[in-house]
Order: sequence, then structure tokens, then C-alpha cells
Amino acid sequence: MPLPAEFHDIAKRVNNWGRWGEADEIGTLNLVTDEVVRAAAAEVRTGRRVPLALPLKEDGVQSGLIPGRINPFHTMVQINHEIFGPETVATSDDAVTMGLQAATHWDALTHVSHSGRIYNGRPAGSITAHHGSEFSGIDKIPHIVSRGVLLDVAAAKGVDRLPGDHAVTPQDLDEAAEFGRVTVRSGDIVLVRTGQIQVYLAGDKHGYGYPSPGLSVHTPEWFHARDVAAVANDTLTFEIFPPEIENLWLPVHALDLVEMGMLQGQNWNLESLSTACGEVGRHSFLLTAMPEPFQGATGTPVAPVAVF
Amino acid sequence: MPLPAEFHDIAKRVNNWGRWGEADEIGTLNLVTDEVVRAAAAEVRTGRRVPLALPLKEDGVQSGLIPGRINPFHTMVQINHEIFGPETVATSDDAVTMGLQAATHWDALTHVSHSGRIYNGRPAGSITAHHGSEFSGIDKIPHIVSRGVLLDVAAAKGVDRLPGDHAVTPQDLDEAAEFGRVTVRSGDIVLVRTGQIQVYLAGDKHGYGYPSPGLSVHTPEWFHARDVAAVANDTLTFEIFPPEIENLWLPVHALDLVEMGMLQGQNWNLESLSTACGEVGRHSFLLTAMPEPFQGATGTPVAPVAVF
Amino acid sequence: MPLPAEFHDIAKRVNNWGRWGEADEIGTLNLVTDEVVRAAAAEVRTGRRVPLALPLKEDGVQSGLIPGRINPFHTMVQINHEIFGPETVATSDDAVTMGLQAATHWDALTHVSHSGRIYNGRPAGSITAHHGSEFSGIDKIPHIVSRGVLLDVAAAKGVDRLPGDHAVTPQDLDEAAEFGRVTVRSGDIVLVRTGQIQVYLAGDKHGYGYPSPGLSVHTPEWFHARDVAAVANDTLTFEIFPPEIENLWLPVHALDLVEMGMLQGQNWNLESLSTACGEVGRHSFLLTAMPEPFQGATGTPVAPVAVF
Amino acid sequence: MPLPAEFHDIAKRVNNWGRWGEADEIGTLNLVTDEVVRAAAAEVRTGRRVPLALPLKEDGVQSGLIPGRINPFHTMVQINHEIFGPETVATSDDAVTMGLQAATHWDALTHVSHSGRIYNGRPAGSITAHHGSEFSGIDKIPHIVSRGVLLDVAAAKGVDRLPGDHAVTPQDLDEAAEFGRVTVRSGDIVLVRTGQIQVYLAGDKHGYGYPSPGLSVHTPEWFHARDVAAVANDTLTFEIFPPEIENLWLPVHALDLVEMGMLQGQNWNLESLSTACGEVGRHSFLLTAMPEPFQGATGTPVAPVAVF
Repeated sequence: MPLPAEFHDIAKRVNNWGRWGEADEIGTLNLVTDEVVRAAAAEVRTGRRVPLALPLKEDGVQSGLIPGRINPFHTMVQINHEIFGPETVATSDDAVTMGLQAATHWDALTHVSHSGRIYNGRPAGSITAHHGSEFSGIDKIPHIVSRGVLLDVAAAKGVDRLPGDHAVTPQDLDEAAEFGRVTVRSGDIVLVRTGQIQVYLAGDKHGYGYPSPGLSVHTPEWFHARDVAAVANDTLTFEIFPPEIENLWLPVHALDLVEMGMLQGQNWNLESLSTACGEVGRHSFLLTAMPEPFQGATGTPVAPVAVF
Repeated sequence: MPLPAEFHDIAKRVNNWGRWGEADEIGTLNLVTDEVVRAAAAEVRTGRRVPLALPLKEDGVQSGLIPGRINPFHTMVQINHEIFGPETVATSDDAVTMGLQAATHWDALTHVSHSGRIYNGRPAGSITAHHGSEFSGIDKIPHIVSRGVLLDVAAAKGVDRLPGDHAVTPQDLDEAAEFGRVTVRSGDIVLVRTGQIQVYLAGDKHGYGYPSPGLSVHTPEWFHARDVAAVANDTLTFEIFPPEIENLWLPVHALDLVEMGMLQGQNWNLESLSTACGEVGRHSFLLTAMPEPFQGATGTPVAPVAVF
Repeated sequence: MPLPAEFHDIAKRVNNWGRWGEADEIGTLNLVTDEVVRAAAAEVRTGRRVPLALPLKEDGVQSGLIPGRINPFHTMVQINHEIFGPETVATSDDAVTMGLQAATHWDALTHVSHSGRIYNGRPAGSITAHHGSEFSGIDKIPHIVSRGVLLDVAAAKGVDRLPGDHAVTPQDLDEAAEFGRVTVRSGDIVLVRTGQIQVYLAGDKHGYGYPSPGLSVHTPEWFHARDVAAVANDTLTFEIFPPEIENLWLPVHALDLVEMGMLQGQNWNLESLSTACGEVGRHSFLLTAMPEPFQGATGTPVAPVAVF
Repeated sequence: MPLPAEFHDIAKRVNNWGRWGEADEIGTLNLVTDEVVRAAAAEVRTGRRVPLALPLKEDGVQSGLIPGRINPFHTMVQINHEIFGPETVATSDDAVTMGLQAATHWDALTHVSHSGRIYNGRPAGSITAHHGSEFSGIDKIPHIVSRGVLLDVAAAKGVDRLPGDHAVTPQDLDEAAEFGRVTVRSGDIVLVRTGQIQVYLAGDKHGYGYPSPGLSVHTPEWFHARDVAAVANDTLTFEIFPPEIENLWLPVHALDLVEMGMLQGQNWNLESLSTACGEVGRHSFLLTAMPEPFQGATGTPVAPVAVF
């Protein structure tokens, strides 16, 4: 079923192809200028740090719902191995196999395509098994350090977590910004809290993934208007799932990644951050969320840290 | 062959077991206090960012010299898969298998043991195949954001890179600190540049690994005296290889990780950082170098970023 | 809780340590002599072949019940890659990550130990992370081709499958041999059919694993008395699970693998074989069930074929 | 550069598309009839067994020459884990990551495509990252048990191994058949020995892969004329490498796999088999070489056994 006219209308309004030149591969991360970074560092006033990644473990968020996306599988290669002889220093080494989108992660801009295109109008066929993403692979992102802003939609609404059928709207984002007394600015990385990750933390992987609150198809325009650099949240699917428009699957992915060229993050644990923002009395902070530079990859685990 | 008396003498002088309590699992990272982080953030004056990780790819630094430590092996799980039907949004997913110490990485405190012990006096046998590190696994590190200091030993000596038989001494570190007009403080993360990674970047993996300059067995006392939080460099083996004392293999690992409880980093690309420090006229910066929280792991890939 | 006296009594009666010399690493497979193989080949009278392996796929029998035993995870490395230029011959390559005991498999003799020992009295500590099994690894098995005998316990009892609490006893084995009009001989590979794999084939992975019928702790003596070379069945755990004697877990594994030195196979699909035996009117056949020679491994996938 | 006319001429002569119906996915393995299998079993007269697989280990034949084809990487998941409590039966489990074409293997018919087609005229695009081979994946092969014939080209020529620039011709195959006093028949699996694997066994991986003797582009017609079921040899690339016709890469793969629908095997260790054939005085035997049924895979490790 072709994408509906409504989708294409929004796509036109948020499209950034060519905005940073034909050769650009990183999209809205261009908005994180030196000036933005200086201002972000100025957010550090207490030194308090809050980690946002889930542990990487075999019993992670993947339930089998998404085929081929396996939880981190950790094995030992050496254990206290006296490689240089008895009574010498012994070494332990380990290895992992994992889906790059399995845990707390960033989607690369190439994680989705639509109508045969990826970000900046390049052909989707430039993604191959032998090279991965020829363009806009996650390794093309040099660094992600910027101001982070928590839009705590659940807290703003006075609930622990949003219900599974709640599509987070632009109005919700406005309310959350007002709740946090924060104005979203160009180059910001916006973290949207639904509280949904509590379902996983309570042991219900299936319930975590589906049904899930998430971003509405109308949010990309809100992010575009504010020149947001990247957006992450605390759900498996990022956008509301199942979708708000019947048979229109993953429209937010297509708008954010393909049209705007804006990275998305999923499975971020924003619970402690919500608490910290409340205690510090501030919903903005320095955020470091550096991708692991997997060559050609369409995603990456990330271990973000907010610093107040 | 048992560890020599000289080793045990140094070990006593740098030992931190019990310093942060019997339950401690993170060692010198305790030294990164909120105050240290505030001061680190104050290093950001230009907004310039320098990434320090090598690309994660099959053609990485591992040459087969270290058995079982495989370069990142990246494969595709989905490519433009129209999972919801024709003409819908298509997704691409990928996966990786890799040695956790294969690329730019942190050693966890459990990466080595000696005399049957790991950091804080715990038994080496607490590392198992099924659980990995019961104590001091890399997932126990909540965050690594601090002040970074580049001790550019090669630049201080006016050479591109140190020769393969050069053990970096405390005096070398002093000279490099003077060269950079920087004083190493409690909680700093020290990056020691030898220039050795140029050998890898020029395509010679074997020459990169061996012979290699690296830290002398006398450096742990220097770091200990200054309460350094962590140390990383631009070599495969961290310490000089082959070792400076015959048949005493990996003594620096044993002193740093087991006795001091101080994380080590290897295969960090410090070339652009050296250039940036020269251009900015400063050898200190905000450093973010967050481990990926692999549960029980004895190491982790890391994608550090220096911010000036 | 120490192993009970009853276990040790049986252990003494079935113990084969030293029977084939102190250096032996393959146990009862020594019983498959050239003469046995000639007789096995003489079983081929129709040319009909029946494969006994489950497909190797991500949706395999592992449900997460056994930590760290992951189903085969298959990914593409190249897809129609014109590696030598446009319009040339294109290649496709793939890779897999899997638990060696995840699917239709053989346990190596080292898969279990008890009281610090593996088969032939060697120390369990000879299994290490860096080398795997120093002794009796699956790669030490040169070949497995012998006469196969199906003991169709379910069919002999006139049921589709045995109930989950049914421990297959020596008497059951006798009945099944009589049902199949077959006499088990020295060097035979015995396949014991419970029908339990139907539960997996019907889509219920959890029900397949637990509760499960399986071999009773009294069967090793039956196999020992007949000098059987190896035994496989159509369950996840091989032996009845939960066990017939409270708190005595995996006794059959310990008796078969450690004491007798007899390979065990699990997750073999014996459904078509049962049908074929009925149609051919014979419960013996040539069986090929060659391990993949993974160096030092404690198990291996296997794709057995019965030939009538 | 398009495939030359000479290639297309041969292709027409050996093409089997439609021969076993439009739905066929296994090609020349259709030739292994019950009658062929009965005759194969009749080859067993001594009971002597010869394994033909190389050990599966990290130090395998892959040298990095073929990107993405990694040697088996074996790690431990559990080591003597007393999962049910102290002094109980302890278990050891392991896992592997490997390229399916990395070691002694079968290519599936989908391992190569040309002109956008795979065997039986199906589109090459039916191979996808998420499903692998929709048609003719290695899991579609139900079993491989047949008569094996060793064509010992090196021995027939009185050399240890063929030189690196030797293309094995139809005349060479005739000579080797005469040397072995064997007539190749319909349904046979032919093993062609060049002796090249000695180079790997002597420790020279690079020399093993390149330059390498191998089958000439003229051999597919020889196999086609005799209705051979499958062919394997003792080289990395199967066909002579670099190729005999400039810029015509992998033509034998394209002819055997795509046009004829005939499986190819590589990296088979035929050294002991050569000795055994000499000692037994016979170059034909029962051959079992069952693929591991990886769903959708374009190749599989295999552990073949010859039985005399």
C-alpha cells in the first residue's frame, strides 16, 4: 500500500535534502555548532551525572517481536589465562554478538528508507550487505555532545507512564516544555519521556514493545520548526505502535530519518533523569551520546550521560 | 615464573584496596567528584570537539597476534525490508560480533588478575564463563566524564612517534606535562601519546602491535601520586612490548587494574587531538568516554570525545 | 547438595574409565569397529534416506530457558555482490552465530562434569575459556557412521507422545526393541523416540522444554550392558525434566558422558523416522551423524541421516 | 565487463533449468536416486572410514583475502557451571560465530548468480538479508549420501600437488579416472584432488589461496555429460585462481551452481583419502556429506566421511 498523500505533505514541509549541501551525510547534527556546545557546557553547574543506557545483556529488551534483532550475547574468550606461564599476570577477554539496534541505541539515518530513497535523496540501494551504508552510516557521525532537554510528557500529565494508545502530540511537547520551564533551541537533543520503559523494567518485555505510546506523525514538524538536532525516547518503537493512521507504519521514522536527516534514539532509560530534573529543578543539561563508529552501520548502541 | 620482588614492592606502594570501602567496584573513578566534573566542564571554551575512536571495522587493529580478540564483524540482518508490505517504509538492521577489547577500548578492572586476586582483593575465580565478572565488570562504571589531559610524549620529544623500544617513564610524563603547560590533578583522565598508532594507520598492523613503545612499570606510582582517575594511550598493549624487565609480562596492567583499581584504555587515536591541542594552545579539555554497559564484561569499546 | 549414594552406585557399575586406555578421549565410540560399520552398511536395502535434523533458524527450539544457548542467528555478508565489477559473476555469503548445543546436536563428553572430573578421570579444570576442552572435545571424534536403531517408545505404547512426567525405563526400552523386532548390539547408535518434539513442531517452545519426558536414571545401565556406542532422542533435556529423584539434576548426563564416555544427542526429529520404520518394516538402518569438528567444543550441531 | 560469448556457449550446453520441473530447488542432487544409494552402500567392504573436514578453529583457512568470511570463532558460555547448586552436576556450553563458507563447506546453489539469475532461472533478487535464499537455500537439500569417487589428479600425474597455475582439464579428469580404475556414473559425488591443501597444512594460508590450481572452465561439460551429482575439491576457490581467461572470474561457479544446479565443495582435506584409496586399491566409496540445514543459507560447513 503506497504512502498516503498526508505523509507526503508533511514530508515536503520537513524535508532537509540539500540544506547542508549535496555531499552532506549527517543532517541535523550540522546544527550542533561550536556555539551550541559552549552553551551546552555552561549547563553544567552541579557536576551531577545521570547515565541513560540500559545494561547490555542477554535478557535485554528484545523479545523476539522484531526478527533478527538479538539481545547482546556475551561470552568469554579467556578467563584468568596465564598466557605467559604459571604464576604470571593472567588475562580475561570477552566477546559479544548483538543487534546494533537491540538495546539503548541510535538509529543511523539509513535505518529506514522510503520510495527508494534515504536521506539527502540518495538511492536506498546504496545500502548493501558487503559495505553496509555507503552514505550516512553511523560512523559518519563525528561526535554527539550537545545540550540535552528532557520533555517529560508523563510527568507533565501527572502520570507514571502514558497509556499504550497515547500518541505524543506537538501540544504534549509544548506542555512538557512548559512543565520543565525550558525552551527548545536549535541544536538541542530532545529526550521525550513516556514512562513506557517501566514496563520492561518490571519484567514484561512483550508489554513493553506492544502496545506502546510514542511520537505522533505530527511531531516531526514540531522538531523541524525548532531545528532540533536529534530526538530519543524510552520506547522500543519510538513512535506510537500500532500506528495512529491505519496501515501507515513507521511514518515518524521516515520523516525524521529520511526527510529531515535527524537521528532517533530508542530504549533510553529516562527514569533516573526524570527524578534528577525534578531534584535539580532544571530540564536541560549537557548530553554526551557518542555513537560507536561501526563502519557502514545503520545503528549503534549508545551509553548516553546527562550532566547537570 | 613468579612475579619478582620489585613488582610486589611497587604493588604495595600503589595499592588502593579498601580505600573506598570493601564493597567498592570502581576504584579510582571514585576520584571523579561532582567538583571535578564542574571544573572539567569549565574547560569548554571553544566548543571544538575531537573524536578519539578508530572506526569499528573488520579491518581493525587486531592482526591475529592476540588469540580470540576478533575485529568487529559487521553483517546485515535486513536491507530495505518492506516488512509491512510493498511501497511502505523499509527498514535496515545490522549486527556485530566483536572482541570487547578489539578496538578503541577500556579494560575493565577485571581484565587482568595476579596471584589469584582482582581489584579490592576479591578472588579471580569470581570471573566465570556464565556470569562474566561478578564484581567490577565494566557495567559497574556509571559514567566517565571528567577533565582529560593529553601528555604528548612524542611531541614533547620533538618526534613523530617514539621508537618501539621506548618505555615511557615518569620523567617523560613530567616533560610532557611541562610541554603542555598542564598540571595533572586528582580525577583527571590522562591520555599518553606515543604516536605508535600511526603505524596502524599506515597499514602495518603487525608493526603496530610489536615492538611497541608503552608505559613503563614505573608510571603507576606517578599516576598514583597524582590520584589520576584513568589512563589511556595509543598503543595495542598499553605498556612497552616486549616488556622492559625480562619475563615480567603485563606488570603495568597488574599494577593499574588490580592494585590501584584504575581503568586503562588502549588503541585510542590521539593524532587529531595532538593537532588540536597545539592549535588551541591547551592540553586539557572535557573528556567523555562512556563505557558501553556490557553486563559482567572485562572490557568495552568506547568512542571518546574531547571538547575544548 | 552432594550427589546421593544411589548415583555413585550406578556410576561404579557403568564406569568405563581406563577401558580403552588412559589416553582415550572418545569412549564408547571405540565400539564402532570396521566390522560394525560393514554390518551397518548392509542395512541399506531400499536406498531410502530420512534426515533427522531440525532446520537451523532463529526461531529454533531455544526459548530462553537455558541461559546463553542461543538459536542460530543467520546474517548476510554479501548479497549478489559483483566483486569483480559490473555484469560479472556475483557472490552471496553468509555467517552464523549459535550455541553449539542449541539445535539438533551431540553433547561432547565434556558437556558435563561431576565431582571435578570429566570422562576417563581427567580434571574438569582442563576445560578453559581459551582452549575449550583440552581433552575429549567434539573435534576428537573422527567420524560417526554406524548402525542406528530406533526404539520407538511412544509407538510401542500406542501413543502419539509420552506424557511430560514419563521417565523412559529399561523396561520401556525392552518393549520398544520388541515392538521394532530389533536386538540392540555392540556399537549401535540408539535413537529413543518419545514424540515430545511434536510440542515444538506445534509451536510451543516452552512446553517442549518443560515438563518433558526423557530417559530415566536407570537407562545408562541398560545401554552399558549392550555396549551401545551413542544415544540420541527427541527432547530438549535428554533425560526426564524435572528429574525423577528430587534435587538430582542431570544424573543421566553425568552417567552417560562422564562415567561411560558415551555421546548423547538431543533435539533430534524422529517423527519421519518413526513413519519410515513403520513403512519399511524395520527399526534398524545405516546412520550417519558426523559432528562438525569444532576444536575444543563441548557440543556440535549435527545433521543425521538414516538410510534404509 | 559482460560475460564473454564463450561463457554463454558453455552455459547453454550445461543448462539444467526446468529439467526437474519449474519448482525444483536442488538440481543435480535429483540424480541421487534410491538405486544410486543402494549401489553406494555396496561400496562398503572394509568398514574403513576417512574424515574429510578440516578442524573448525580460529586459525582456519581464511586469511582475510575474502572479506567477511571469518574463521570459526569459538567462545565459552559456561564452564563447569554448577547451575543447580554446589556439588551438583556441572555443565559446559559454548558458541560459535563463523562464515558459512569459511571452512570445509558446500556452496549452496545460491552462492553465486549471474545476469540477475540463480539456478532454475529464478531472480537473484530472491536472496535477501532478512530471509537469505528464498529458493535453493542449503536447507532445501534433504540429505547427501551417495557414491563418492576420488579423481586424484595430483597422484595420476605423479606429483605431490599441482602447480598454482594448473587448470584441471577434462583430460586430467579422464586420466585420474583411469588412474583410479573408476568410471564416473550418474549420481556420483566427485572429489577432485589437487594437493593444494598441503600448502595450508604447512602453515601458509596466503599461498594456499593464491595462486591456486583448480577446475578449468571446461570441466562443467565433463560433469554434465556424466550426470555427476556434486563436486568438491581441496582448494579455497574451487576453480583455478587467478582465472584462465582474463577478466572472467568465477565462471566455473556460475556454470556449476547457476546453470547446472550442481553443488560445489571447497577446502575438503583429501590427503588421507588419497592414501586410503591407494591402500584399499579403490577410488570409489560411500560418501556422507550432509549439509547443516541453515535456513536460507548460501553455504554450510560440512564434515564429510568416506567409507570403504
